[in-house]
Amino acid sequence: MSEPAGKVALTGIKPTGEVHLGNLVGAIRPALRLAEQYDSLYFIADYHALTTIRDAELLRHYSRSVAASWLAAGLDPERTTFYVQSDVPEIFELSWVLSCVTGKGLMNRAHAYKAARDRNVETGEEPDAGVNMGLYNYPVLMAADILIMETDVVPVGKDQAQHVEYAADIAGSFNHLFGDRYTFKIPQGFIPESGTGDVLPGLDGRKMSKSYDNTIPLFLPENKLKKLVRRIPTDSTPVEAPKDPDSSAPFQILRQFAPASAADVVADTRKRLEAGGMGWGELKNVLFEVLNDELAPMRERYNAYMEPGSELDDVLARGAERARERASRVLSGVRKAVGAR
Amino acid sequence: MSEPAGKVALTGIKPTGEVHLGNLVGAIRPALRLAEQYDSLYFIADYHALTTIRDAELLRHYSRSVAASWLAAGLDPERTTFYVQSDVPEIFELSWVLSCVTGKGLMNRAHAYKAARDRNVETGEEPDAGVNMGLYNYPVLMAADILIMETDVVPVGKDQAQHVEYAADIAGSFNHLFGDRYTFKIPQGFIPESGTGDVLPGLDGRKMSKSYDNTIPLFLPENKLKKLVRRIPTDSTPVEAPKDPDSSAPFQILRQFAPASAADVVADTRKRLEAGGMGWGELKNVLFEVLNDELAPMRERYNAYMEPGSELDDVLARGAERARERASRVLSGVRKAVGAR
Repeated sequence: MSEPAGKVALTGIKPTGEVHLGNLVGAIRPALRLAEQYDSLYFIADYHALTTIRDAELLRHYSRSVAASWLAAGLDPERTTFYVQSDVPEIFELSWVLSCVTGKGLMNRAHAYKAARDRNVETGEEPDAGVNMGLYNYPVLMAADILIMETDVVPVGKDQAQHVEYAADIAGSFNHLFGDRYTFKIPQGFIPESGTGDVLPGLDGRKMSKSYDNTIPLFLPENKLKKLVRRIPTDSTPVEAPKDPDSSAPFQILRQFAPASAADVVADTRKRLEAGGMGWGELKNVLFEVLNDELAPMRERYNAYMEPGSELDDVLARGAERARERASRVLSGVRKAVGAR
Repeated sequence: MSEPAGKVALTGIKPTGEVHLGNLVGAIRPALRLAEQYDSLYFIADYHALTTIRDAELLRHYSRSVAASWLAAGLDPERTTFYVQSDVPEIFELSWVLSCVTGKGLMNRAHAYKAARDRNVETGEEPDAGVNMGLYNYPVLMAADILIMETDVVPVGKDQAQHVEYAADIAGSFNHLFGDRYTFKIPQGFIPESGTGDVLPGLDGRKMSKSYDNTIPLFLPENKLKKLVRRIPTDSTPVEAPKDPDSSAPFQILRQFAPASAADVVADTRKRLEAGGMGWGELKNVLFEVLNDELAPMRERYNAYMEPGSELDDVLARGAERARERASRVLSGVRKAVGAR
């Protein structure tokens, strides 16, 4: 990745919950930094979320809320292409074409499916109990998401590298069969440098994650944010004793979250904790101030986007238009290559 | 099926070869008789054929050729809706939505997949060797084909009843989860009365079928048709001996193929065979005359449709427009019901 200039980067965002602090630090900020280096596309993967969400209001809310969160956090819809997956029907037609060149064996080895299968076998269920075809087909749709945008790189977490490998694999099969008429670009995954490389602790000290129900949502009202910060676990070291900042959850959040402008606060707090004399309560006050200073203007933008009739819908409609232009160009090449009318 | 008036019947036609005499007698004619009783839709399932055809020219040719054959055989594109599957992108989006409500267990039990799996196991291969995801997902796409047209009935052969059962099953799952917002019509399969209920013999005496490579293509030039008719197998009973018409391949073809206007010829030929004195050669001459009288005007229409720039494309474009109008109405209800934007 030495010369990313002009290369296309695609980021998919699955709308399955409210955006939280861990998302901002671990996903949104690294992705937005990337936008400066690449020709960047972001999409809300609402039809992926449909494999688990069976409530129209909830899915629609999460799609809007996640889109509003990314915009509030600084995603620039003019410099990037920002769209909702279900607004780009070309993806689903391509997904069928790709399924015709994808071996079933590949899907049997996909992580998400294998995990579900293993859980079933462990608990004595039928191997495929409760597995829907959406979950099973997930990697094919993801390949369509990636390939239809002529993506060069997909920033991924370590556990998502397989998705891009599969997309590359499926593109390879297509190119092998139909490559004299249409050739897919082969995408590559890469693990972007995060701000810290560390894991943001949640309200119970474990990694902050929706699945642990231990998150600090990004756009809480100020008083609720303060309350949650108070709930971050600490040990019983007395105020006057020296403390190890690197094993303290509130300090880890402070350190990973703090913007460059608050670097002094972080350094100063570290010193004071190590020296002794700063209690957990005071640390949490510092953390709250830093959080709130940074989040307050985002919260305002978020709330504005979430108003009915806000510009959110226009932004996404313009994004969809741009994405469809791109997608229909690729699909039209594919259709000719396979012999659709 | 006592009162079919106003009900919607859908027929899918997989373009995997040239149309032959067996297709005309066993599929096209029964389907066209149905068109008089139902609000009928017919589609060329080109994206289903993609699970096996990997040659763009061939797939495009078969799609055109099959469409031209049905039109030549009397399909009225004004009274019915006649379209190509790949011209209706709504089908593929619906297919994804349906996959999210379809249990993988159901697909494991689908006939076509099970047959491929059993063959692999028998020959000591990996169970999923050579199985692509198109084959595996086939029943979901077929459910989308059926449900997106608000189909009441699907005329099926005995071995295809499962497809419609699966579509009904998948519609039921969707209605269970999202039925307060959108309800699919539950389709029914039915086995239409064919002209004879019998099987048309092919050039080797077995059932006429592309898989046996024993067919008489529908639109051969006259001299080639004559040659093939001469190749239909008969036994060595001498000319003067009485013959059993019902165990004679040429007579079976004559009986099943002959239009009402040739009923006298059939009855007369039966009598003469049973009485003795009519040889196989003469029988074949009679068969050729009956075939050619009926096929010559069709052949002319077929050849006209197959000319580049013929009205075929306009016919299919008009059909696609009508089909998409219908499909987008259904899809829009489904999108609202599941919470797509």
